[in-house]
Formats: sequence, structure tokens, C-alpha cells
Amino acid sequence: DPKLKIFALSSNKPLAEKIAKDVGVELGKVSVNKFSDGEIRINIEESIRGDHVYVVQSTSAPTNDHLMEVLIMIDALKRASAKTINIVMPYYGYARQDRKARSREPITAKLVANMITQAGADRMLTLDLHASQIQGFFDIPVDHLLGASLLANWFIDRNLGGENTVVVSPDHGGVTRARKLAEFLKSPIAIIDKRRPKANVAEVMNIVGNVEGKTAVLIDDLIDTAGTITLAADALIEKGAKEVYACGTHPVFSGPAMERLAESPIKNMVVTDSIMLPEDKKIDKVVQVSVGELMGHAIKRIHENRSVSPLFEKQFK
Amino acid sequence: DPKLKIFALSSNKPLAEKIAKDVGVELGKVSVNKFSDGEIRINIEESIRGDHVYVVQSTSAPTNDHLMEVLIMIDALKRASAKTINIVMPYYGYARQDRKARSREPITAKLVANMITQAGADRMLTLDLHASQIQGFFDIPVDHLLGASLLANWFIDRNLGGENTVVVSPDHGGVTRARKLAEFLKSPIAIIDKRRPKANVAEVMNIVGNVEGKTAVLIDDLIDTAGTITLAADALIEKGAKEVYACGTHPVFSGPAMERLAESPIKNMVVTDSIMLPEDKKIDKVVQVSVGELMGHAIKRIHENRSVSPLFEKQFK
Ligand SMILES: Nc1ncnc2c1ncn2[C@@H]1O[C@H](COP(=O)(O)O)[C@@H](O)[C@H]1O
Ligand SMILES: Nc1ncnc2c1ncn2[C@@H]1O[C@H](COP(=O)(O)O)[C@@H](O)[C@H]1O
Repeated sequence: DPKLKIFALSSNKPLAEKIAKDVGVELGKVSVNKFSDGEIRINIEESIRGDHVYVVQSTSAPTNDHLMEVLIMIDALKRASAKTINIVMPYYGYARQDRKARSREPITAKLVANMITQAGADRMLTLDLHASQIQGFFDIPVDHLLGASLLANWFIDRNLGGENTVVVSPDHGGVTRARKLAEFLKSPIAIIDKRRPKANVAEVMNIVGNVEGKTAVLIDDLIDTAGTITLAADALIEKGAKEVYACGTHPVFSGPAMERLAESPIKNMVVTDSIMLPEDKKIDKVVQVSVGELMGHAIKRIHENRSVSPLFEKQFK
Repeated sequence: DPKLKIFALSSNKPLAEKIAKDVGVELGKVSVNKFSDGEIRINIEESIRGDHVYVVQSTSAPTNDHLMEVLIMIDALKRASAKTINIVMPYYGYARQDRKARSREPITAKLVANMITQAGADRMLTLDLHASQIQGFFDIPVDHLLGASLLANWFIDRNLGGENTVVVSPDHGGVTRARKLAEFLKSPIAIIDKRRPKANVAEVMNIVGNVEGKTAVLIDDLIDTAGTITLAADALIEKGAKEVYACGTHPVFSGPAMERLAESPIKNMVVTDSIMLPEDKKIDKVVQVSVGELMGHAIKRIHENRSVSPLFEKQFK
């Protein structure tokens, strides 16, 4: 009988453990090392012949290394006769390079999709893609989970939500995401509308919607250098918000992110564990909620040929 | 009219300059950077529409980064309507993972060949592949240059060669390569034959061929940790060789390589510039001969639809 097996590569073993626990299996045995010259060496240390294999790997930094690991793993699994190869990629790196904004730009998000597919993956399970269109970059089935309900739970558990709270999108591109969170919190939304009145004049932070006296909850899909979200928080305080929280699925946290978050009026930065944080990035105001159960449930449903969307369309607890 | 354009990525700009000089063109304008989170950002800063583009990149360490650079560059060139995309990869990384030696191993050299092809490359130009069979991993034309004649020149210029010199392969897998060098030097060959007489007994270094009183020239394709070549040098001295030189195309030089080379009886370690060496690896006994002209000549011949093999089958000066 084909078995369900879950393997963790090196990007996020703690999350893989949570997923495996939820599914009710032990993580499969694989060793992921480097040769002396830095080339990746992967040894799968148990038979997977005829099995349904799930590989947990986020392509967070070092993105190229994490991506090569997953490709080499797929190659090894394919040659070792896995029945299906399912990639569980909570954070999909290179997602922001998803279109040609200027001449002669690459579309790396599509290149990566091709690499994963052509290496031999049969299915992708991912979370809060920077653009949903990336699903269409794949010719294999993609299950796209949303983290909004998990982020919402953190606020609901603290009695936030309702009319005294306002969910704020830090830019006009993120309004759909804000709308989703606002539904769970039963709160109104607001939008930060950056505008440059004239060329060579500083941008003005205009807020569309009412934030005065309210608890503002900023939401973005990924927090990278934290520039967008901390500037938005400043603008909200200036416009009379009572307090500001921020949330976002993927804690990329690069460059000046930690200093910016520490210095910002943001009370808590709520993120998920889609990306494993090193100790120095686990500062007090950063809260990680786990997507382990959500992803575990999704794997079980996929394995039973059931749709995963009910998992995130309703409140997931 | 389609132009011939040469672009350098980040692994080996000095070699790319030499190649471009030999071809008689300026390097094309491209910027290769990293975003704050480490993702690669490539901007091609001149039109290449309808042109024949050559991209110079070795997949030396950091191999995964250098490989992603080349893939992203191919994607950008393809989308910007290059007429042909030709990859000039003097050192092909992951070449040692070219077969399943054990169960459930990947064949990463094939995975990489697929990635390069599927990204959109039309042709490969490479040098001294670890195994010539890797050419067959590609469904696009591969021009495979050999560095032996350039390495030979260094010895010939120093009046080495003839019957007082012996070319030595450090293992039975490298005899064809030694044979090639011996032809240029007009010298006999010898082979180091490692054998383990019984299980749990140390290996014996047996030398097949006569080395006594001779100048021994060891040859390998790549020098990684330098373990093989320095042990071979010790064995040659012990068996009465007058002096020992070593040569090899690709100076991978990882881990303990530099200390081993420094301490070994090897008088000079002659390598090429297929891999760019950082300053701390340019120790006195290491000599780099350039493959810039060889590769430049090859590009010109490819561009004129002529065969490249005469370049390395005869003495290349
Ligand atoms: N890793 C990255 N870090 C920062 N910016 C990026 C990254 N990858 C792509 N971009 C740029 O981000 C822009 C797209 O971001 P967005 O408008 O948020 O979808 C494009 O102009 C990209 O060139
Ligand atoms: N980057 C590397 N460094 C050291 N050994 C490697 C590397 N890549 C592959 N190998 C191993 O080298 C062996 C093949 O080397 P060879 O016999 O010289 O072709 C295989 O057992 C590989 O697992």
C-alpha cells in the first residue's frame, strides 16, 4: 500500500515537525549536507518506492540554496520511484519578480515554477503567494492556502475586532487581503494611499477611511525590510489611531527590518512560522502563530482527495 | 544585422574580459545584484533584441548562486528576444553527481543540464567536464573544449617533456586525460593504483610505470580538497621521482586544499583561470594559465559555424 511520507529539508524543520505531528506520521529520514566545495548533498535514508511523498521547504534566505535543495530532492525522489511528489512550500521565494515591470527583466517566479515542475513535482501546496497569479505559472495542481484566519485568531483571542478596530492595507495593492482579515474581525477597512502631488515633491500619506480613536491592524503578505509597514504605522498614529498592530504571513525580515520594527509604534508584529526565524529576530514584539496544523490538515485532505479551501475560508481553529 | 554580444555574470569577470578582448568586443552592460533579502536581481542594460548572446559564467562556489544567476539571465534574455543564447561555462559545477552510485541518489549534473536547457539556452560551451558523458545530458549542442594543450605549454616552455618526464594519472579514472597531456609532452605515462589488499587494511599506493629519476607531472581535471593529488605526490617521491609537478584544469580549492598544497612536495600546481581565485588562494606555487584566448577563439568559430575541435586537438598557442 502506498504510504504518506513527509520529509523536511533544511529551511524549516520545526514547522515540518508540527505538520508531521498533525498528520500523525514521523518525519522521513533524509540527510541534507554540503560537500567540501559547498555543493548540496542529499541522501534519502529510507525507501520511498511507490509512496506519496511530501517535501516541506520554504525558499526563504538563502533562497538559492533552499531552492536547489528542493530541486535535488525532487530529482532523487523521482529516480527512487516515488508515486507522487508533493512540494509543501509555505513561503515561495522570488515571488515579487512575477512580471516584467521594465524592459529586459526576468520573470523569476515563473522560472522557479518551471524548475520545480520540470524537476518532477506533481503538486504544490503553498501559502499566501505574493500574487495569486503565480498559481497559473504551474501546469501542476497548486493548493493555495490563506493565513488570514490564523492571523485573525490572534486578535480575536485578545478581544480585538468589531467597530473599534480598523484593518488597514498599507498600499492599494493589498486591499483584498485587508478585506479578508476584516471579515474575520468584523471590522471596517482603511487604505493608505501614497501620492506624490508633483514630481520631486515628497510623497504624502493619505488615509482613505476612518482611523481616529481606533485600534488599527495593518496587514501585508510579507514583511521584508519593514519599511512600508513602519511608515504606515507612523501615519496611522499621526492621523489619530489609538494604537497600531501589524500582521503579515511571511517574516522575511531582511536588512534594517528588526531595528525598524523595534523603533516603530507597532505594538505587536504578528507573523506565521512559514519562515523559520533565527533567535536574534525573535524580538519581544514579534509574535509567531503556527501554520503547522493548517498545512497538516491540508495534506490530509489532499491525501483523501478532498478540497482544501474550506480550511481557510472559514475560521480555522 | 545580428550582433555578437558577450556578457559576464559575477563568477569570473576577469576571464570574461579576456574572452571579450580576444573576440574583439566590449563586454555587454548588465548589472548583477542582490535584493535586501538575498534574491538575485539582474538588469540587462542594453538592447540584445535579435543578437547572438554569449553569457560567461562558471558554476564554481557559491555554486547555487552562480547557477541561479545564469538561469535568471537566460530567462531575461529569452524574454528580451535574443536570437540565440549561448552559455559559456568554463567550470561546470555539480559534475561529480553524474550517476546514481547508491540507491536514492540524485543525478544533479543532469538536473542542472535540464534547468539550463529548459530556461532557454541554445548552446553550451564548456571546458574539461568531469565526465564527457555530461554532454549527452543536454539536448542542445555542447562544445567541449580540452585544456590539456594549454597546461602542456607551461611545461614545454620550461623545457620539460620527453623521456625524462612522466605524466602520472592519480587514479585509474584519469588515464585518458594523462594520455592526452603525454602526447603533447612526448612523454610516457604512469598510473597510481590504490589498492586495499584486505578489508580493514590501509590502502597501498602502487605505481604502474617507471618514475624513478624522472620529473613526474600529475594531472587531474579538478583539484578540490587536493587530497588525491598531494597523496599521489608523496607516493611519487617515495618511489624515487626526481621532482613532482601537478596540473589540473579547475582550481576548486576547497577545505584544506591550500594547506595541503603548501605542505606537499609539489613544486608547482598549474591550473587554468576557469575558476577565479581569491587572493588568499593565489599562493606562490599555484600558477594560472588563461583559457581566455582558447574560449575566445571557440566563440569566434561557433559564430562562423566552424568546428571548435581543431583548437584543442593540436597545440594551442
Ligand atoms: N527580493 C526582492 N526584494 C525587493 N524587491 C523585489 C524583490 N524581488 C523583486 N522585487 C521588485 O519588487 C517589485 C514588485 O513588487 P510588488 O509591486 O510588491 O509586487 C518589482 O519591481 C521587483 O523588481
Ligand atoms: N561536490 C562534491 N565534492 C565531493 N564529492 C562529490 C561532490 N559531488 C559529488 N561527489 C561524489 O563524488 C563521487 C563521484 O566522483 P568521481 O568518482 O570522481 O566521479 C560520487 O560518489 C559523488 O557522491
